[in-house]
Parts: sequence; C-alpha cells; structure tokens
Amino acid sequence: MGDPAGVSPELTAKLIALAESRASRLVIFGDRRILAAGAAVAGVSPDVEFVAPEGAPGREGERPVFVDLGNLDPDDVTPATATLAGGRFATENFRRALLLAKSGAADAVLFTPFNKKAMRFAYPAYDDEIRFVNDVLGLAEPASEFNVLGGLWNARVTSHIPLSAVAASLSEEAILHALVLTDSALRAAKFPAPRIAVAGLNPHAGDGGSFGREEIDMIAPAIARAAAMGIGAAGPFPADSVFLRARSGAFDAVLTMYHDQGQIAMKLMGFDRGVTLLGGFPFPICTPAHGTAYDIAGRGIADVGACREALLLAARMGAISRAGRAPMEERVAG
Amino acid sequence: MGDPAGVSPELTAKLIALAESRASRLVIFGDRRILAAGAAVAGVSPDVEFVAPEGAPGREGERPVFVDLGNLDPDDVTPATATLAGGRFATENFRRALLLAKSGAADAVLFTPFNKKAMRFAYPAYDDEIRFVNDVLGLAEPASEFNVLGGLWNARVTSHIPLSAVAASLSEEAILHALVLTDSALRAAKFPAPRIAVAGLNPHAGDGGSFGREEIDMIAPAIARAAAMGIGAAGPFPADSVFLRARSGAFDAVLTMYHDQGQIAMKLMGFDRGVTLLGGFPFPICTPAHGTAYDIAGRGIADVGACREALLLAARMGAISRAGRAPMEERVAG
Repeated sequence: MGDPAGVSPELTAKLIALAESRASRLVIFGDRRILAAGAAVAGVSPDVEFVAPEGAPGREGERPVFVDLGNLDPDDVTPATATLAGGRFATENFRRALLLAKSGAADAVLFTPFNKKAMRFAYPAYDDEIRFVNDVLGLAEPASEFNVLGGLWNARVTSHIPLSAVAASLSEEAILHALVLTDSALRAAKFPAPRIAVAGLNPHAGDGGSFGREEIDMIAPAIARAAAMGIGAAGPFPADSVFLRARSGAFDAVLTMYHDQGQIAMKLMGFDRGVTLLGGFPFPICTPAHGTAYDIAGRGIADVGACREALLLAARMGAISRAGRAPMEERVAG
Repeated sequence: MGDPAGVSPELTAKLIALAESRASRLVIFGDRRILAAGAAVAGVSPDVEFVAPEGAPGREGERPVFVDLGNLDPDDVTPATATLAGGRFATENFRRALLLAKSGAADAVLFTPFNKKAMRFAYPAYDDEIRFVNDVLGLAEPASEFNVLGGLWNARVTSHIPLSAVAASLSEEAILHALVLTDSALRAAKFPAPRIAVAGLNPHAGDGGSFGREEIDMIAPAIARAAAMGIGAAGPFPADSVFLRARSGAFDAVLTMYHDQGQIAMKLMGFDRGVTLLGGFPFPICTPAHGTAYDIAGRGIADVGACREALLLAARMGAISRAGRAPMEERVAG
C-alpha cells in the first residue's frame, strides 16, 4: 500500500477485487483499517486472508494474504497531504514487500503510488525509488526505470539531472549499458527478440554532425557494439520522429538520452495509463505511472487500469524471474 | 512553387484549384510547364491568368495570376532527387515572391516544400529560410519560426544548435524576446489576448531547483517581465505535461526552450498536417510543415490539407498586415 492520503487505499482495494488478481498470489502489506477505508471509498469488498505482521505467507492458498502491520490509524491520515505518518506507512510497507521478494518468497513487487515528499519525511535519503530499493536490499545495482505503455517501452540513459549536464553525462559505455539493460528487461517480459530504437541527442539527430557530434562519436558506436552482442538496436533516429515510428509498431522500445525526450512523448501518448518498471534488480518492481492524485482521492473515481497493467506486468515478469532463480534441480525436476 | 522533384508541383496545382484560393488574390511564381505537369499528376485544371516575368500583377482580378518565369524545363527535372536545377527554380520563385511582398504588392508569402540540399546547391549560404529571407530583403530581422497545428502554436527560444549548447544559449533577454515575438505573431493572426505557456528547461521544470536553476534564474523572471508588458505568459511548466494542457485548450501557444522539446510533441500531435510560419518579418511567410515527400511524388496522392491551412493562415495574417502597413489616409478613408 502506498501513500494513504491519496488514491492508494482505494486502488489497493480495487486491485484486490479484480478478477485478474486471482492469477497471482497477492501478499499485501499495510493496515487493515486503511484497506477498509479504501474499500468503502471504492465500493468494493476485497476478500483477503488477514495475517499478523510476523506471519509468513506461503505460496499456496485460495485468497490474497493481507499482512496487517497495524501501522496507521485512519484517524492519523490527513487527506490530500504529504505527512510523516503517511511516509512511514508507505516506506514500511514497501520495505516489507522488498524483503519478502529478497527472501525468495515473492517473485515481484508492486506498489500503489507514493508521495515523494512524504517518503522523504520518513526516509530523508529517499532520492528516488531506485536508491531506496538498493538501500533496503543492501545492493548497489545499476538499475533503471522503464516506462511501459501497452507494447511500447521507454528507457533513458540519463534521468533527473539538469539539461545542461546531459551531454557531458553521456558516453558510449553508458549508452551500451542502457541498451543491455533494456534488452534484458524486455526479454524478461517475454519479448523474444526485442527491437530497440535509439534516439539521437541533437535536433535532427545532429544532421550529419551539423549541430552536435554525439550521434557520430558515441551513440552510433554504442549501437554497433550492442548489435555485435546480438541486441536488436537501431538508430540513432531524430527524437522528434522516432516515437511516431515506435507508435506504429516498428519498435518495442525507444532508448532516449534524457528525461523529457521520452517523457514528452510518452505522456502525450497516454502514459498516465501506463506502468513504471524498475528493472535491473533481482526481481521486477512495478507501479502505475500516475501519482497519488490527491485532487480526486476519496471520491471513488480513481481508475484502477494502470494498477491492473502494473499487476499483469509484475506477474508476467515475476514468473520468468522465478524460473530463472530456481535451483538447477528444481528446474530439472519442473 | 517549391522543389520540382517532389510534391510541390502537384500541390501548387491542387492549391490553385481549391475553392479557398478564391478568397485571396494568388500570384504564383514558377514555370507554366512545371505547373502543367503538376496539374496532370494531381488531376486538376487550375484556372490561372499567365503573365510574363516582367508583368506587374495588380491587386484586382478574377483569376489567380501565374508569373511564368520560364525557369525550368520539365525534361530537366530529376524526380525525387535534390539537384542544382531544382534549387535554382525554387530559390528564384521564392525570391520573386519575397520581392513582390516587399514592394507592397503582396501581403503574404506562401511556399510549397523546399529541399534544403537543393537550395544549398543554388545558394550555398542557405542555412535556413530565415537567413535566406533576410538576405533577399536586405534585413537582419530577429525572425522566428512558429509551428501551427490547428489552434495551437509552438515557438522556441533556441533551434538548430547542439543540445549541449542549449542551456548556455538561454538568457532572460532571449526568453523575453521570444515571448514578445510570439505574442505579436499570435495577435497578427487574430488572437485578441494570446495565452502563452512557457516550458521549463529541466526535468520536472527543475523541481524547485533540485536539477537545474534556469527556471528560477531566467525563465520565471522573463515571464514576470512579459506579464508586466501585458503579455499573457504563464509558467514555467514541466515540458512533459505542458502540451497535454495546451492540447486540451488551456493555451494558444507553448514557448519551448529548444528544438525537440516542441517538435517531439507537435509531431506526435500530427504536425505533419500543420503549418510553419516565419514571423517577425514585415509580412507573414507560411509553408506546410511537411517536406517534399520524394517517396510519394508524382503519384497524385499528396494531401493538400497542410497547404490549405498555410494558405488560410497567410491570408488571415496578410490582411491584418496590410491594414497595419497602410498609410494613415488610406486607413481613415477605408
């Protein structure tokens, strides 16, 4: 369960109530009173098996398991407001879910929307989800955020840095690394031969070096090296037309050089209905792309569609991840 | 008439044949044999009055005037290829049209698509249309390119420069100047009180200075100064959501900080059906946003829609431009 002041409680209740949730074995971390409040708002009756915080939910069972951490009294929720109490609730739920997956007892993690400000109240080092996950798992993984909208993925080489720092942050190695991560994440999501388009950095992809040489000096060499490794990478393409081609089905993913290059396109194509995936960890971590939606919280009108997409992606990737992590004897036996 | 190797001849013929062309007094520069070839491809019969190169077309008359420069034999056209002959034809036509407007005998200029490579064969200093127009008119105007799609305009502070140079090229003055130009171009196109959204430069518009300070140090102060001048400027807004708001009708224009910030969005929204306007000159210059379309030239399937939009914008702005340029006695008399 994510931030309690927004739509996360009602979306959690709606998600559990979906028929699709029965295809997986859900284990939800939160407070049963917050779930009840969300269910009342959403007008659904999620059928779960409540267990105590120390309860170890098994893999088998008919109903979703709700681990009641008793960590937030609904009276302590300030609607539509980022608070320390809300941040503590969301970070604890997230931490417990991550540790369950780390133990091997879960195959994927999904979270309903967080409020970054509230997360920082509770965990001041909360730069972003990737940093938090690495801290909890004791890792320093070269993880990456993927944005998924239907069959189209977007990954990026740089992210939350000033635009003035983008060009200097790019290198052939960084682009190649991003291509490898993107290819493996797509394969983990059952794309047998991912087709990845790579955006240029400059207007018209530099127009043959007329305005910028990164395409010639870094991006094309990285694509060539990736192709030599068997990765289906193509480009560099002008950033202002590559998404038109991708939207028409020519590619499974677009690798962009900086944040807005992909986000402008993805948001215009309806990414609010999409899914954000944190890839590169030992297990997939998914969340709806939209935020806490404080403006519509508590009215029962929050659309569960993006959460459902996140659940389906987590389930698909989690099953593959589990198969990959299984001991050899189990795989042979299976 | 633009580049003869692409769709320009057939689009010129189709444009003349449109009912909308009767609302203006069209004067077309080119070669009647190229027009005839385009008309044959398009399957239309444009009804024009041919005049000699030295003929001075008046403002009144029933039919469009075609100034036959006799400057290209159809046998010298290499289809779907950028050539010196094609560049000479297009640059001469464009030059003649610009000079007619400069003389006051025309109120606006429209061109069917050019091929930049062919233009450079004929005029090596051809950086872009703005440079060429300034050369022909003997001006050094601070002109600007506007992209127009339906009721939504996009202008930019920087254009064909490397992404690495964008941040250093921005200044409060440059942003303010772009806001003034955008406001006056919109007013010249009959927006009585233009609403202009200004995009930030950095991801999430810098997130309060967390990644980049240009929003705080330059963009917001420029907006404040523009607002003090009576310009309806708002922002800075995150670049990845400002076009969603503009598309929903919240703004008439978006001012972006760099080329792809606007072009990614405009092309996804269908800018190929839109119009490019060169603003800031003594008269408006319009062209369809799409290119020469060498791949479909000569098949008669080129869509005249963007040319029609360009014609309507040129006519609307030209009429206002003429009113503004008329001597006082004429305006009083009129």
